[in-house]
Amino acid sequence: MAHEQHLELIQALHECMTACNHCYDACLKEEDIQMMAECIRLDRECADICNYLEQALSRNTPFVSELAAVCAKICELCGNECKKHNHDHCQKCADACFKCAEACKSVA
Amino acid sequence: MAHEQHLELIQALHECMTACNHCYDACLKEEDIQMMAECIRLDRECADICNYLEQALSRNTPFVSELAAVCAKICELCGNECKKHNHDHCQKCADACFKCAEACKSVA
Amino acid sequence: MAHEQHLELIQALHECMTACNHCYDACLKEEDIQMMAECIRLDRECADICNYLEQALSRNTPFVSELAAVCAKICELCGNECKKHNHDHCQKCADACFKCAEACKSVA
Amino acid sequence: MAHEQHLELIQALHECMTACNHCYDACLKEEDIQMMAECIRLDRECADICNYLEQALSRNTPFVSELAAVCAKICELCGNECKKHNHDHCQKCADACFKCAEACKSVA
Repeated sequence: MAHEQHLELIQALHECMTACNHCYDACLKEEDIQMMAECIRLDRECADICNYLEQALSRNTPFVSELAAVCAKICELCGNECKKHNHDHCQKCADACFKCAEACKSVA
Repeated sequence: MAHEQHLELIQALHECMTACNHCYDACLKEEDIQMMAECIRLDRECADICNYLEQALSRNTPFVSELAAVCAKICELCGNECKKHNHDHCQKCADACFKCAEACKSVA
Repeated sequence: MAHEQHLELIQALHECMTACNHCYDACLKEEDIQMMAECIRLDRECADICNYLEQALSRNTPFVSELAAVCAKICELCGNECKKHNHDHCQKCADACFKCAEACKSVA
Repeated sequence: MAHEQHLELIQALHECMTACNHCYDACLKEEDIQMMAECIRLDRECADICNYLEQALSRNTPFVSELAAVCAKICELCGNECKKHNHDHCQKCADACFKCAEACKSVA
């Protein structure tokens, strides 16, 4: 079955989406929210494209490589931003982003 | 952490979304596609709301119960339609839909 | 044609989504971002459900009233939050939210 | 304001999304649905990416050119498929897709 080719990628996207949204929610509650503005913005960008792509893959979209290439780029930039911040949610999010970026590149 | 309250529901939504999209993809390839038109339509409706809600829960949306109530209804109607068809993908989709509907009702 | 019944609502949803996302973007750039955290959160919630519903209506979803009822509630809460803030983008967003909430209620 | 740079593109995306979803809904009701399977599939792909991108642009996404390049490609392939079919909804959808593809290319 077509979407089974991409089970690992779908899982990485799902974990990245969850990590980004958790980081987004936590950033909005931080006292130093001013410093987290770019993190909040990129968390949403990254969560949205991962959420989009996990659905597109599961319906066997004909546009896997194009969408995965864009997603890899967004994941990397979000990971780079999160990596700058010491909050546990940011570090965990960075890890999920980099892992997802690699998974996306493998099909892009 | 807020989204951890809903880990089981997020998982049920993710599995239902995947099952609905696989059923949608498979229905579009069936020879008796005319009979599957309503299944195709409801698969998309159900995949979209599950995909939406899994993201909303993971960002700690304040609207859990309202969204889960709508999602439960859509999952049930999609499950009822899928149940009518003997295709393996339809039967599996119906199971995922009913399971997800129950999980949604538990927070609605 | 089915979606033509809902042209005005689709337009109101589109304008509300645009206003919420503009407010979200502008809030992330404000100096008093700490005060805007709830506004940022609700702007995203509202933009996402409006974006979802404008698409669902245009594909003739069978779940118009259920989805519109949830959307009306989210629009109202977002409008109430935006209304508290003097920023021009918040006031404009509040107007779009209340207008959209009314349009949603007319079909809910 | 940032999203105002892209008002024309946001409008083209919105019209393309609406046309694709109307075509999708109408295709599911056609008697020759077997012939419309690829059109149904691409209508959904195209509606989803347009719906995604109109929201991303309105929140001032940093990923305009990458996302617009993918969207242009999907719009073109959907337009090419729709163009093959004489149904009025398919011809109108093809027009909206080609117009949107051009608008996307202008920022890609």
